[in-house]
Amino acid sequence: MKIDILTLFPKMFEGFLTESIIKRAIERNAVEINIVDFRKFSHLNHNQVDDTPYGGGSGMVLRPEPLVEAIESYKTKDSRVILMCPQGVPYKEERAKELKEYKHIILVCGHYEGFDERIRDYIDEEISIGDYVLTGGELPAMVVTDSIVRLLPGVIKEDSYESDSFTENLLDYPTYTKPADFRGKKVPEVLLSGNHQKIKEWREQQALENTKKRRPDLLGE
Amino acid sequence: MKIDILTLFPKMFEGFLTESIIKRAIERNAVEINIVDFRKFSHLNHNQVDDTPYGGGSGMVLRPEPLVEAIESYKTKDSRVILMCPQGVPYKEERAKELKEYKHIILVCGHYEGFDERIRDYIDEEISIGDYVLTGGELPAMVVTDSIVRLLPGVIKEDSYESDSFTENLLDYPTYTKPADFRGKKVPEVLLSGNHQKIKEWREQQALENTKKRRPDLLGE
Repeated sequence: MKIDILTLFPKMFEGFLTESIIKRAIERNAVEINIVDFRKFSHLNHNQVDDTPYGGGSGMVLRPEPLVEAIESYKTKDSRVILMCPQGVPYKEERAKELKEYKHIILVCGHYEGFDERIRDYIDEEISIGDYVLTGGELPAMVVTDSIVRLLPGVIKEDSYESDSFTENLLDYPTYTKPADFRGKKVPEVLLSGNHQKIKEWREQQALENTKKRRPDLLGE
Repeated sequence: MKIDILTLFPKMFEGFLTESIIKRAIERNAVEINIVDFRKFSHLNHNQVDDTPYGGGSGMVLRPEPLVEAIESYKTKDSRVILMCPQGVPYKEERAKELKEYKHIILVCGHYEGFDERIRDYIDEEISIGDYVLTGGELPAMVVTDSIVRLLPGVIKEDSYESDSFTENLLDYPTYTKPADFRGKKVPEVLLSGNHQKIKEWREQQALENTKKRRPDLLGE
């Protein structure tokens, strides 16, 4: 899979690309990630990409040309062009599982003060990572990239995401490791029992109870 | 405001802290952000911080001691300790507005393969940035930091967030800038009219229609 990320802040992606799982996925050729500074598509002096809004108001608005030309220059017949935007469809794990099947994804980072509405004509879909406002689309692009890349073959062990939160609409069950006694708080006895069937049942029941208590909405309640 | 971020991947924050609005907010002393590698709180050989899960299963689980000792070492009476976790309360703009009032926030980045349940006893609240799974809590910690810092006094112009998406449960209205004609698509005439009352009404109506079409759930529909 190839992911192109169009942004005005390419350096924001440095730590993200050079650390942890994403770095490993790139080294293993599971994914190619390309950060594109679309400022270079500006035709104006000083590579300007934004201007004041028609109708008045504060802040600068991203002009359509540089971003649209950047999209056109990277897009192929296999591409899915996705705009990171608080007005987009709320992102869910289910969509990450679908997006991992694409050969080429172009993630477009919105401008923190708004973008020209006509840019939307060149976008296949819009994603919002949550109902909060951020200074730009860069963190959302990293979130979407991270959620997809971890699902690509060979990146993390497959059995480690079978029990993830949101699989089958359930939150995860509680996990414990050493020490068996931490400041008087002990690991539940069933986990020390060696009885695999009992442990499996306990975990299923805990996942369900956890979900009922914390996120009844996931169960449609 | 001071934000301490406890993580095993401190380098992931490099681009985030040295670019864009966050960098400016730090330079203006609106916020102090401190990245803590809690691996240094390990008592084990090779600074090990995780171990196999009790009851079996794949993946390594974060042990309680290093993280709990890190929290205790940074916590003061003014601190709010927040765990980044897919089982947490879904994060909303409203919560960002409340969190910006704290003097000191400690954001705890979960381990990508799970953490010992007993860590929860040392946490004030748990936040989930959305119903998807990521490789760690680092991106969620950046998202929460970004959403709070942009609201701190002097970081961005106040009038630029009065019309943000999710203010009054509405999405934003469409914005336009130059050119007035982009490949045959024109800016709506009302925005060129100079009639401020009409423009205000058009924007309010567009914000409402946008929300009805894209996110009727925000209107309780």
